Amino acid sequence: MNTDLILQNVARHISLTEAEKKIFLSLLQSKTVKRRQSHLAEGEVCVDSTFVVQGALKGFTVDKNGIEHVISFALPGWWIADMYSFISQKPGTLNIEGLVDSEVLLLSRTNQQKLYEEVPKFERFYRILVENSLVASQQRLVNNLSLAAEERYLHFTEKYPSIIEYAPQHSIASYLGITPEFLSKIRGRLARKQS
Amino acid sequence: MNTDLILQNVARHISLTEAEKKIFLSLLQSKTVKRRQSHLAEGEVCVDSTFVVQGALKGFTVDKNGIEHVISFALPGWWIADMYSFISQKPGTLNIEGLVDSEVLLLSRTNQQKLYEEVPKFERFYRILVENSLVASQQRLVNNLSLAAEERYLHFTEKYPSIIEYAPQHSIASYLGITPEFLSKIRGRLARKQS
Repeated sequence: MNTDLILQNVARHISLTEAEKKIFLSLLQSKTVKRRQSHLAEGEVCVDSTFVVQGALKGFTVDKNGIEHVISFALPGWWIADMYSFISQKPGTLNIEGLVDSEVLLLSRTNQQKLYEEVPKFERFYRILVENSLVASQQRLVNNLSLAAEERYLHFTEKYPSIIEYAPQHSIASYLGITPEFLSKIRGRLARKQS
Repeated sequence: MNTDLILQNVARHISLTEAEKKIFLSLLQSKTVKRRQSHLAEGEVCVDSTFVVQGALKGFTVDKNGIEHVISFALPGWWIADMYSFISQKPGTLNIEGLVDSEVLLLSRTNQQKLYEEVPKFERFYRILVENSLVASQQRLVNNLSLAAEERYLHFTEKYPSIIEYAPQHSIASYLGITPEFLSKIRGRLARKQS
Protein backbone atom coordinates (compact mmCIF):
# COMPACT_ATOMS: atom_id res chain seq x y z
CA MET A 1 0.00 0.00 0.00
CA ASN A 2 1.46 3.36 -1.04
CA THR A 3 0.67 5.54 1.97
CA ASP A 4 3.06 8.50 1.54
CA LEU A 5 0.55 10.71 -0.26
CA ILE A 6 -2.30 10.14 2.19
CA LEU A 7 -0.03 10.77 5.20
CA GLN A 8 1.15 14.02 3.56
CA ASN A 9 -2.50 14.92 2.98
CA VAL A 10 -3.33 14.40 6.66
CA ALA A 11 -0.16 16.20 7.83
CA ARG A 12 -1.35 19.38 6.09
CA HIS A 13 -3.93 19.80 8.84
CA ILE A 14 -3.04 17.66 11.90
CA SER A 15 0.13 16.11 13.40
CA LEU A 16 0.03 12.41 14.12
CA THR A 17 2.26 10.32 16.38
CA GLU A 18 3.63 7.07 14.93
CA ALA A 19 1.00 5.12 16.92
CA GLU A 20 -1.81 7.29 15.51
CA LYS A 21 -0.49 6.86 11.96
CA LYS A 22 -0.61 3.10 12.50
CA ILE A 23 -4.23 3.20 13.66
CA PHE A 24 -5.21 5.37 10.68
CA LEU A 25 -3.46 3.19 8.10
CA SER A 26 -4.90 0.00 9.64
CA LEU A 27 -8.40 1.34 8.85
CA LEU A 28 -7.69 1.89 5.13
CA GLN A 29 -8.16 -0.55 2.28
CA SER A 30 -6.41 -0.31 -1.07
CA LYS A 31 -8.13 -0.93 -4.39
CA THR A 32 -7.42 -0.71 -8.11
CA VAL A 33 -10.03 1.00 -10.29
CA LYS A 34 -9.50 0.35 -14.00
CA ARG A 35 -10.29 2.86 -16.74
CA ARG A 36 -14.09 2.99 -17.24
CA GLN A 37 -14.61 0.55 -14.34
CA SER A 38 -17.47 1.50 -12.03
CA HIS A 39 -16.31 2.23 -8.49
CA LEU A 40 -19.72 3.41 -7.22
CA ALA A 41 -23.08 3.21 -9.01
CA GLU A 42 -26.27 5.24 -8.55
CA GLY A 43 -28.62 3.47 -6.14
CA GLU A 44 -25.80 1.96 -4.11
CA VAL A 45 -24.85 3.14 -0.63
CA CYS A 46 -21.56 5.01 -0.70
CA VAL A 47 -19.76 3.00 1.97
CA ASP A 48 -16.30 4.53 1.45
CA SER A 49 -14.61 7.86 1.19
CA THR A 50 -12.06 7.34 -1.60
CA PHE A 51 -8.57 8.86 -1.69
CA VAL A 52 -6.82 8.86 -5.09
CA VAL A 53 -3.17 7.71 -4.89
CA GLN A 54 -2.57 7.42 -8.63
CA GLY A 55 -4.66 8.02 -11.77
CA ALA A 56 -7.95 9.93 -11.89
CA LEU A 57 -11.64 9.30 -11.16
CA LYS A 58 -14.78 10.94 -12.43
CA GLY A 59 -17.97 11.53 -10.38
CA PHE A 60 -21.17 11.95 -12.40
CA THR A 61 -24.95 11.66 -12.34
CA VAL A 62 -27.22 10.51 -15.15
CA ASP A 63 -30.52 12.38 -15.62
CA LYS A 64 -33.84 10.84 -16.65
CA ASN A 65 -33.02 11.51 -20.32
CA GLY A 66 -29.83 9.45 -19.98
CA ILE A 67 -27.60 12.52 -20.15
CA GLU A 68 -24.40 12.32 -18.09
CA HIS A 69 -23.52 15.29 -15.83
CA VAL A 70 -19.97 15.35 -14.48
CA ILE A 71 -20.02 16.64 -10.90
CA SER A 72 -16.35 16.27 -10.03
CA PHE A 73 -12.99 14.90 -11.03
CA ALA A 74 -10.53 13.50 -8.46
CA LEU A 75 -6.78 13.53 -9.06
CA PRO A 76 -3.97 12.12 -6.86
CA GLY A 77 -4.20 13.67 -3.39
CA TRP A 78 -7.98 14.29 -3.65
CA TRP A 79 -10.87 12.64 -1.84
CA ILE A 80 -14.15 11.74 -3.56
CA ALA A 81 -17.49 10.39 -2.22
CA ASP A 82 -21.24 10.77 -2.67
CA MET A 83 -21.38 12.90 0.47
CA TYR A 84 -25.15 12.58 0.89
CA SER A 85 -25.00 8.81 0.73
CA PHE A 86 -21.76 8.52 2.72
CA ILE A 87 -23.18 10.59 5.58
CA SER A 88 -26.70 9.16 5.60
CA GLN A 89 -25.69 5.62 4.53
CA LYS A 90 -28.73 5.64 2.23
CA PRO A 91 -28.63 4.88 -1.53
CA GLY A 92 -27.03 7.74 -3.45
CA THR A 93 -27.24 9.33 -6.89
CA LEU A 94 -23.55 9.62 -7.78
CA ASN A 95 -21.62 7.31 -10.09
CA ILE A 96 -17.84 7.14 -9.76
CA GLU A 97 -15.59 5.48 -12.32
CA GLY A 98 -11.95 5.44 -13.43
CA LEU A 99 -10.94 7.96 -16.08
CA VAL A 100 -7.67 5.99 -16.31
CA ASP A 101 -6.34 2.96 -14.40
CA SER A 102 -6.14 4.24 -10.82
CA GLU A 103 -4.94 3.25 -7.34
CA VAL A 104 -7.14 4.37 -4.47
CA LEU A 105 -7.38 4.02 -0.68
CA LEU A 106 -10.76 3.54 0.97
CA LEU A 107 -11.92 4.68 4.40
CA SER A 108 -15.35 3.26 5.19
CA ARG A 109 -17.89 5.28 7.17
CA THR A 110 -17.68 2.66 9.95
CA ASN A 111 -13.90 2.94 10.09
CA GLN A 112 -14.13 6.72 9.99
CA GLN A 113 -16.36 6.63 13.09
CA LYS A 114 -13.84 4.28 14.74
CA LEU A 115 -11.09 6.72 13.83
CA TYR A 116 -12.98 9.63 15.45
CA GLU A 117 -13.23 7.60 18.65
CA GLU A 118 -9.65 6.35 18.71
CA VAL A 119 -7.94 9.51 17.39
CA PRO A 120 -10.35 12.42 18.03
CA LYS A 121 -8.13 14.94 16.24
CA PHE A 122 -9.38 13.41 12.99
CA GLU A 123 -12.62 15.31 13.69
CA ARG A 124 -10.52 18.39 13.05
CA PHE A 125 -8.95 16.94 9.90
CA TYR A 126 -12.31 16.07 8.35
CA ARG A 127 -13.87 19.33 9.52
CA ILE A 128 -11.19 21.23 7.56
CA LEU A 129 -11.41 18.86 4.58
CA VAL A 130 -15.17 19.25 4.36
CA GLU A 131 -14.89 23.04 4.83
CA ASN A 132 -12.57 23.18 1.84
CA SER A 133 -14.93 21.05 -0.25
CA LEU A 134 -17.80 23.29 0.73
CA VAL A 135 -15.87 26.38 -0.37
CA ALA A 136 -15.11 24.72 -3.72
CA SER A 137 -18.71 23.60 -4.18
CA GLN A 138 -20.13 27.04 -3.37
CA GLN A 139 -17.57 28.69 -5.64
CA ARG A 140 -18.70 26.44 -8.44
CA LEU A 141 -22.36 27.31 -7.80
CA VAL A 142 -21.45 31.00 -7.95
CA ASN A 143 -19.44 30.50 -11.14
CA ASN A 144 -22.20 28.49 -12.80
CA LEU A 145 -24.73 31.18 -11.98
CA SER A 146 -22.65 34.24 -12.77
CA LEU A 147 -19.81 33.49 -15.22
CA ALA A 148 -19.98 33.00 -18.98
CA ALA A 149 -18.94 29.57 -20.26
CA GLU A 150 -15.55 30.83 -21.45
CA GLU A 151 -14.65 32.16 -18.00
CA ARG A 152 -15.86 28.91 -16.41
CA TYR A 153 -13.56 27.00 -18.74
CA LEU A 154 -10.61 29.20 -17.76
CA HIS A 155 -11.35 28.66 -14.04
CA PHE A 156 -11.57 24.95 -14.72
CA THR A 157 -8.16 24.78 -16.41
CA GLU A 158 -6.64 26.65 -13.46
CA LYS A 159 -8.25 24.34 -10.91
CA TYR A 160 -7.52 21.12 -12.76
CA PRO A 161 -4.41 21.88 -14.86
CA SER A 162 -3.60 18.20 -15.44
CA ILE A 163 -7.12 16.95 -16.09
CA ILE A 164 -6.93 17.87 -19.76
CA GLU A 165 -4.53 14.92 -20.19
CA TYR A 166 -7.03 12.45 -18.74
CA ALA A 167 -10.54 13.62 -19.48
CA PRO A 168 -12.28 13.34 -22.83
CA GLN A 169 -13.75 16.54 -24.26
CA HIS A 170 -17.36 15.46 -23.61
CA SER A 171 -16.65 14.94 -19.86
CA ILE A 172 -15.14 18.40 -19.53
CA ALA A 173 -18.09 19.91 -21.43
CA SER A 174 -20.48 18.04 -19.15
CA TYR A 175 -18.68 19.34 -16.04
CA LEU A 176 -19.04 22.88 -17.40
CA GLY A 177 -22.71 22.36 -18.27
CA ILE A 178 -22.21 23.04 -22.00
CA THR A 179 -22.21 20.93 -25.18
CA PRO A 180 -18.95 19.46 -26.56
CA GLU A 181 -19.50 21.57 -29.71
CA PHE A 182 -19.65 24.75 -27.64
CA LEU A 183 -16.50 23.72 -25.72
CA SER A 184 -14.74 23.26 -29.08
CA LYS A 185 -15.76 26.77 -30.11
CA ILE A 186 -14.45 28.23 -26.82
CA ARG A 187 -11.14 26.42 -27.22
CA GLY A 188 -10.83 27.66 -30.80
CA ARG A 189 -11.57 31.23 -29.72
CA LEU A 190 -9.01 31.07 -26.88
CA ALA A 191 -6.37 29.55 -29.18
CA ARG A 192 -6.87 32.42 -31.66
CA LYS A 193 -6.61 34.96 -28.81
CA GLN A 194 -3.30 33.49 -27.67
CA SER A 195 -1.76 33.27 -31.15
CA MET B 1 -29.94 37.21 24.10
CA ASN B 2 -32.38 34.50 22.97
CA THR B 3 -30.20 31.38 23.12
CA ASP B 4 -32.76 28.54 23.15
CA LEU B 5 -32.69 27.95 19.41
CA ILE B 6 -28.90 27.89 19.09
CA LEU B 7 -28.55 25.50 22.04
CA GLN B 8 -31.15 23.21 20.44
CA ASN B 9 -29.19 23.44 17.21
CA VAL B 10 -25.97 22.36 18.95
CA ALA B 11 -27.75 19.62 20.95
CA ARG B 12 -28.75 17.92 17.67
CA HIS B 13 -25.12 16.79 17.29
CA ILE B 14 -23.24 17.07 20.60
CA SER B 15 -24.12 17.09 24.34
CA LEU B 16 -22.80 19.98 26.38
CA THR B 17 -22.39 20.30 30.14
CA GLU B 18 -23.70 23.50 31.74
CA ALA B 19 -20.11 24.79 31.98
CA GLU B 20 -19.54 24.15 28.26
CA LYS B 21 -22.81 25.88 27.35
CA LYS B 22 -21.58 28.90 29.31
CA ILE B 23 -18.28 29.00 27.44
CA PHE B 24 -20.08 28.69 24.08
CA LEU B 25 -22.63 31.41 24.83
CA SER B 26 -19.92 33.75 26.18
CA LEU B 27 -18.29 33.65 22.72
CA LEU B 28 -21.44 34.76 20.86
CA GLN B 29 -22.57 38.27 20.03
CA SER B 30 -26.13 39.25 19.24
CA LYS B 31 -27.08 41.66 16.45
CA THR B 32 -30.18 43.04 14.74
CA VAL B 33 -30.18 43.08 10.93
CA LYS B 34 -32.96 45.24 9.48
CA ARG B 35 -34.81 44.49 6.25
CA ARG B 36 -32.52 45.36 3.30
CA GLN B 37 -29.68 46.26 5.70
CA SER B 38 -26.28 44.93 4.62
CA HIS B 39 -24.81 42.45 7.08
CA LEU B 40 -21.79 41.53 4.92
CA ALA B 41 -20.63 43.19 1.70
CA GLU B 42 -18.49 41.87 -1.16
CA GLY B 43 -14.84 42.76 -0.60
CA GLU B 44 -15.11 42.58 3.19
CA VAL B 45 -13.61 39.80 5.26
CA CYS B 46 -16.36 37.53 6.62
CA VAL B 47 -15.37 37.66 10.30
CA ASP B 48 -18.45 35.90 11.66
CA SER B 49 -20.49 32.79 11.14
CA THR B 50 -24.09 34.01 11.53
CA PHE B 51 -26.90 32.04 13.18
CA VAL B 52 -30.45 33.24 12.47
CA VAL B 53 -32.64 33.42 15.61
CA GLN B 54 -35.55 35.27 14.04
CA GLY B 55 -36.37 36.60 10.57
CA ALA B 56 -34.54 35.66 7.36
CA LEU B 57 -31.33 36.61 5.53
CA LYS B 58 -30.32 36.41 1.89
CA GLY B 59 -26.80 35.61 0.61
CA PHE B 60 -26.04 36.81 -2.93
CA THR B 61 -23.29 37.80 -5.35
CA VAL B 62 -23.41 40.53 -7.98
CA ASP B 63 -21.78 39.79 -11.34
CA LYS B 64 -19.86 42.27 -13.49
CA ASN B 65 -23.08 43.20 -15.32
CA GLY B 66 -24.67 44.18 -11.99
CA ILE B 67 -26.96 41.15 -11.97
CA GLU B 68 -27.73 39.74 -8.51
CA HIS B 69 -27.41 35.97 -8.00
CA VAL B 70 -28.99 34.58 -4.83
CA ILE B 71 -26.75 31.84 -3.43
CA SER B 72 -28.65 31.01 -0.27
CA PHE B 73 -31.40 31.98 2.10
CA ALA B 74 -31.10 31.53 5.88
CA LEU B 75 -34.14 31.02 8.11
CA PRO B 76 -34.33 30.66 11.93
CA GLY B 77 -32.09 27.78 13.01
CA TRP B 78 -29.76 28.12 9.99
CA TRP B 79 -26.14 29.29 9.79
CA ILE B 80 -24.85 31.53 6.98
CA ALA B 81 -21.33 32.75 6.08
CA ASP B 82 -19.09 33.39 3.10
CA MET B 83 -17.27 30.13 3.77
CA TYR B 84 -14.28 30.97 1.57
CA SER B 85 -13.72 34.28 3.32
CA PHE B 86 -14.56 32.95 6.80
CA ILE B 87 -12.03 30.14 6.48
CA SER B 88 -9.25 32.08 4.74
CA GLN B 89 -9.99 35.43 6.45
CA LYS B 90 -9.45 37.09 3.06
CA PRO B 91 -11.95 39.44 1.36
CA GLY B 92 -14.96 37.52 0.05
CA THR B 93 -17.48 37.77 -2.77
CA LEU B 94 -20.74 37.18 -0.87
CA ASN B 95 -23.21 39.86 0.21
CA ILE B 96 -25.59 39.10 3.07
CA GLU B 97 -28.59 41.25 3.92
CA GLY B 98 -31.89 41.06 5.79
CA LEU B 99 -34.95 39.88 3.85
CA VAL B 100 -36.98 41.03 6.86
CA ASP B 101 -35.99 42.51 10.24
CA SER B 102 -33.92 39.74 11.82
CA GLU B 103 -32.18 38.76 15.06
CA VAL B 104 -28.89 36.91 14.65
CA LEU B 105 -26.07 35.52 16.80
CA LEU B 106 -22.47 35.87 15.64
CA LEU B 107 -19.55 33.53 16.27
CA SER B 108 -16.32 35.09 15.01
CA ARG B 109 -13.59 32.95 13.46
CA THR B 110 -11.31 33.88 16.37
CA ASN B 111 -13.92 32.82 18.92
CA GLN B 112 -14.59 29.64 16.95
CA GLN B 113 -10.89 28.73 17.21
CA LYS B 114 -11.03 29.50 20.96
CA LEU B 115 -14.08 27.26 21.21
CA TYR B 116 -12.23 24.39 19.48
CA GLU B 117 -9.45 24.71 22.06
CA GLU B 118 -11.67 25.03 25.10
CA VAL B 119 -14.42 22.58 24.07
CA PRO B 120 -12.86 20.25 21.46
CA LYS B 121 -16.15 18.44 20.81
CA PHE B 122 -17.20 21.52 18.81
CA GLU B 123 -14.83 20.22 16.10
CA ARG B 124 -17.37 17.42 15.77
CA PHE B 125 -20.32 19.81 15.73
CA TYR B 126 -18.86 21.95 12.96
CA ARG B 127 -17.63 18.91 11.05
CA ILE B 128 -21.22 17.63 10.91
CA LEU B 129 -22.65 21.09 10.16
CA VAL B 130 -20.24 21.61 7.27
CA GLU B 131 -20.87 18.06 5.99
CA ASN B 132 -24.58 18.85 5.82
CA SER B 133 -23.93 22.12 4.00
CA LEU B 134 -21.69 20.30 1.56
CA VAL B 135 -24.42 17.76 0.86
CA ALA B 136 -26.91 20.57 0.22
CA SER B 137 -24.49 22.48 -1.97
CA GLN B 138 -23.62 19.40 -4.06
CA GLN B 139 -27.29 18.49 -4.35
CA ARG B 140 -27.98 21.96 -5.69
CA LEU B 141 -25.15 21.65 -8.23
CA VAL B 142 -26.62 18.34 -9.39
CA ASN B 143 -30.12 19.84 -9.57
CA ASN B 144 -28.93 22.90 -11.49
CA LEU B 145 -27.14 20.69 -14.01
CA SER B 146 -29.75 17.98 -14.41
CA LEU B 147 -33.27 19.20 -13.49
CA ALA B 148 -35.61 21.38 -15.50
CA ALA B 149 -36.55 24.74 -13.94
CA GLU B 150 -39.98 23.51 -12.85
CA GLU B 151 -38.51 20.59 -10.89
CA ARG B 152 -35.91 22.91 -9.34
CA TYR B 153 -38.74 25.16 -8.20
CA LEU B 154 -40.58 22.22 -6.63
CA HIS B 155 -37.40 21.12 -4.80
CA PHE B 156 -36.96 24.68 -3.63
CA THR B 157 -40.47 24.93 -2.16
CA GLU B 158 -39.87 21.63 -0.31
CA LYS B 159 -36.54 22.79 1.08
CA TYR B 160 -37.66 26.27 2.04
CA PRO B 161 -41.43 25.94 2.64
CA SER B 162 -41.66 29.22 4.54
CA ILE B 163 -39.38 31.34 2.34
CA ILE B 164 -42.23 32.17 -0.01
CA GLU B 165 -43.60 34.43 2.73
CA TYR B 166 -40.38 36.41 2.96
CA ALA B 167 -38.66 36.46 -0.38
CA PRO B 168 -39.69 38.59 -3.33
CA GLN B 169 -40.29 36.78 -6.62
CA HIS B 170 -37.10 38.15 -8.21
CA SER B 171 -34.92 36.75 -5.39
CA ILE B 172 -36.42 33.29 -5.76
CA ALA B 173 -35.99 33.45 -9.55
CA SER B 174 -32.38 34.51 -9.04
CA TYR B 175 -31.76 31.58 -6.67
CA LEU B 176 -33.15 29.23 -9.31
CA GLY B 177 -31.08 30.80 -12.08
CA ILE B 178 -34.12 31.84 -14.13
CA THR B 179 -35.88 35.13 -14.96
CA PRO B 180 -38.81 36.37 -12.82
CA GLU B 181 -41.02 36.11 -15.95
CA PHE B 182 -40.12 32.44 -16.36
CA LEU B 183 -40.80 31.81 -12.65
CA SER B 184 -44.26 33.39 -13.13
CA LYS B 185 -44.94 31.03 -16.03
CA ILE B 186 -43.90 28.00 -13.94
CA ARG B 187 -46.13 29.08 -11.07
CA GLY B 188 -49.03 29.58 -13.45
CA ARG B 189 -48.50 26.15 -14.98
CA LEU B 190 -48.33 24.47 -11.55
CA ALA B 191 -51.46 26.31 -10.36
CA ARG B 192 -53.36 25.07 -13.43
CA LYS B 193 -52.11 21.50 -12.81
CA GLN B 194 -53.34 21.60 -9.21
CA SER B 195 -56.75 23.03 -10.02
